[in-house]
Amino acid sequence: MHPTSLEMRVRRFAERVRTIKHVEQALALLNWDAQTMLPKKGVEARSQVIGTLTEQRVRLLLDPQLAEDVAALTEPEAAAQLDEPTREAVRLVKREIERRRAVPLELQRAFAELTTEAEAVWAEARKADDFARFSPYLERIVATVRTFADCWGYEGHPYDALLDDYEPGMTVAKLDALFRELRPPLEALLDRVREAGPVDAAFLRRAFPLDRQRAFVERVLVDIGYDFDGGRLDVSAHPFCTGIHPGDVRITTRYNPHDFVDAFFSALHEGGHALYEQQLPAEWADTPLGEGASMGIHESQSRFWDTFIGLSRPFWERYYPEAVDKFPEVLGDVSFSAFYRAINRIEPSLIRVDADPLTYQFHIFLRYELEKQLVAGELAVADLPAAWRERMRAYLGIAPETDADGVLQDVHWSAGLFGYFPTYTLGNLYAAQLHAAMHRDLDDMDARVREGDFAPIRAWLADRVHRHGRRHSPEALIAQATGEPPTARPFIAFLEEKVRDVYGL
Amino acid sequence: MHPTSLEMRVRRFAERVRTIKHVEQALALLNWDAQTMLPKKGVEARSQVIGTLTEQRVRLLLDPQLAEDVAALTEPEAAAQLDEPTREAVRLVKREIERRRAVPLELQRAFAELTTEAEAVWAEARKADDFARFSPYLERIVATVRTFADCWGYEGHPYDALLDDYEPGMTVAKLDALFRELRPPLEALLDRVREAGPVDAAFLRRAFPLDRQRAFVERVLVDIGYDFDGGRLDVSAHPFCTGIHPGDVRITTRYNPHDFVDAFFSALHEGGHALYEQQLPAEWADTPLGEGASMGIHESQSRFWDTFIGLSRPFWERYYPEAVDKFPEVLGDVSFSAFYRAINRIEPSLIRVDADPLTYQFHIFLRYELEKQLVAGELAVADLPAAWRERMRAYLGIAPETDADGVLQDVHWSAGLFGYFPTYTLGNLYAAQLHAAMHRDLDDMDARVREGDFAPIRAWLADRVHRHGRRHSPEALIAQATGEPPTARPFIAFLEEKVRDVYGL
Repeated sequence: MHPTSLEMRVRRFAERVRTIKHVEQALALLNWDAQTMLPKKGVEARSQVIGTLTEQRVRLLLDPQLAEDVAALTEPEAAAQLDEPTREAVRLVKREIERRRAVPLELQRAFAELTTEAEAVWAEARKADDFARFSPYLERIVATVRTFADCWGYEGHPYDALLDDYEPGMTVAKLDALFRELRPPLEALLDRVREAGPVDAAFLRRAFPLDRQRAFVERVLVDIGYDFDGGRLDVSAHPFCTGIHPGDVRITTRYNPHDFVDAFFSALHEGGHALYEQQLPAEWADTPLGEGASMGIHESQSRFWDTFIGLSRPFWERYYPEAVDKFPEVLGDVSFSAFYRAINRIEPSLIRVDADPLTYQFHIFLRYELEKQLVAGELAVADLPAAWRERMRAYLGIAPETDADGVLQDVHWSAGLFGYFPTYTLGNLYAAQLHAAMHRDLDDMDARVREGDFAPIRAWLADRVHRHGRRHSPEALIAQATGEPPTARPFIAFLEEKVRDVYGL
Repeated sequence: MHPTSLEMRVRRFAERVRTIKHVEQALALLNWDAQTMLPKKGVEARSQVIGTLTEQRVRLLLDPQLAEDVAALTEPEAAAQLDEPTREAVRLVKREIERRRAVPLELQRAFAELTTEAEAVWAEARKADDFARFSPYLERIVATVRTFADCWGYEGHPYDALLDDYEPGMTVAKLDALFRELRPPLEALLDRVREAGPVDAAFLRRAFPLDRQRAFVERVLVDIGYDFDGGRLDVSAHPFCTGIHPGDVRITTRYNPHDFVDAFFSALHEGGHALYEQQLPAEWADTPLGEGASMGIHESQSRFWDTFIGLSRPFWERYYPEAVDKFPEVLGDVSFSAFYRAINRIEPSLIRVDADPLTYQFHIFLRYELEKQLVAGELAVADLPAAWRERMRAYLGIAPETDADGVLQDVHWSAGLFGYFPTYTLGNLYAAQLHAAMHRDLDDMDARVREGDFAPIRAWLADRVHRHGRRHSPEALIAQATGEPPTARPFIAFLEEKVRDVYGL
């Protein structure tokens, strides 16, 4: 037998990977539809179809032919002949095959079933404020996740093995270092804000007609460059963004007549994710490179828009007069400065997703620490609600009366997503760092925002972040985009400036 | 090696078939979304995903293990031990495998590519009224379809091999016999109607506000029993029904402010398809039995509602007063009898989908005859436009000025659907036969319709048609439901009565 030619292996590899990506596109649509369009009697059948396609995807990934091609293309002599994107694609596929192979298929299937059931039980438990109903599931999930960590292996902390799924290359050691840098200045800022006392925001709860909220949201999305010819905006219980393909990136929001802020900033947040997905290189759409670099980098794109643009002075200097025009009966008597202070107010609260950019990070510190302890076997699930309350009190000075508003508030643990939470804070840090670098590069950035001209910003993000897809590690991407590896300093500086601006402190 | 147990084969067969059905569900959603929700920049990627999943479906179907299990379960000794639904499921899968295997994979792939391209070219050609642009594609399609017929084999006419895909068991001999019975009385009726002269229907083109059209359509759909908890109504360029699962059956219509009839009867038509899909046995959803029996039977369900209920006197005795309430400014001066005559008027027209129940059948006769000739090699594609005009003139006394309104009007041929058209007329015949049988069984049927109580009708259809899925051949199903094999007599009687009623002839 003569050896299979390199060219043929590359072609076969690309075809197989393309098939996998197409199954992923189908899954993305099945999931989007389940949250936006699916009639309730179709829910059960849908979850079965998603299960079957997920399994088919794994089958395609674990096909021996693909493994053989990947192995051959990883040989130094062969690898040297590949162009860099192909070499990177091979590396990413190899890594996923290895992680999949490391865990017995039986255990993967059992975990999929366990988390499907656990999500339903969690939803009921939260409704009934009954942690005891959920805890046996969480115990099994933690136990399985610990086994995963052992299967995958790690050098430092077992949590490293989990982190790597969401933020490739990130470790407990690196995270702890970043958080050590971040935390004391945030604590100091929070103390100062508390002393300043509350900011009035009651007018944000007035009646904002839904159709006008929708029109305002759509208009701003168009302004920032979200392309409706390659996407759509729908309504769902929890806002989200689904990038099916760079030409088909869908976002959702939710409208509450007594909350202008929720729909608007949710849409801006998802719009940020969507700009990333729409500006991913279309020529890599059928390869593993055509995706966001990591969960943290993805979150940096949504935070960039909702926090660093959407909460900024120049942004509202542009849009506040329009908002007043749109909602004269609710905002007519509210000054720019009152509005600006209200949306930027900092206030400890129980629910993570409602938190401001400062107190938000303490929600993450808490979850990260509890997850680390659970995964290390240093904390029992039964002790979780008490640990939650204790830390909330220590970090933010408040504690939930119910577990529904505490340990049961997030879906992540029921879905088995251990290692995910820290990427939210990383997203904030990356966004601040990108924002600061952009400010240096575009000297008239504030003026552009004030004019509603976001094209240079979008172009900068495309050039530094979006067009690279998953080609670089998050760490390398940030270093390359900003000239410095990930650091907490720009985010701290941003918050210090914000507190000065809003509270005059 | 000990022989594989029957039980294990049955289980493995069921699992494999379930996987195939789940891929079909995903494909159904991908197609539905492409026609209702998909942003335009996502169109190209979508067609690739649909191509990949279609190929994956074929791969699963042609897997040697499945073929082995099907062969083993078809052995008389094994088959005797199966319950009847399983035996039928095995038979249906065996039949599809055989038909797939009979055609070289290369040819199947080439045909898929050809028809994808041809559909796009056809759309352009129709727009430009340029048959010559489309004809090279149609020539290749006809040639391929003739090869398919040879691959599949046939006893009488090569067209039999194609028909079988849409109407299992149907042949040219049987169709010709039905059409011979049907045609002369229809010609006689058409002559009488022509002598009577035109009926005024100009008021149907007045302005009907869209939101009220939508509300009226939704209300009637709920009345006939379409379950919005297991479906949804959206808008698309061409109305259609997609049964993803009995719990997820979606329909579309289109609203034209100057055409009350189009949206309403389209919705009723698709609603009829949808009731069938919603009442299919859910326990067979993951087997080939959980589908409509044939295209003809499916069309009988849509025609039952749009023609036999929706055009009937008792129906509008119920709903016309409501329509006048809803649209007082447009229908306030229109009497019941004027309205009833207008929606039931019979009038030769160029476009099949706009035709009334009488002239519609001549559109089908024409297509059926041309298809037979093309497939038999008795008619060249180049001669098609002339043949079309000639027959239109002979059958309906009118001929299109443009090919866009003639031979280019339907998508079917560009999609390679030869053998499909006759099932439309079969649907009309089956519907009439079911309607007559139902009238005998439910003696107060008209009174029920007049009260808007469609539950007994729905139950009768569920019992006689829907709950059987694809378990019986269409012929057997109709015979069992009505006590008689398919016949044209009830449809002729229906039209004679309709002409008497509307034209007083």
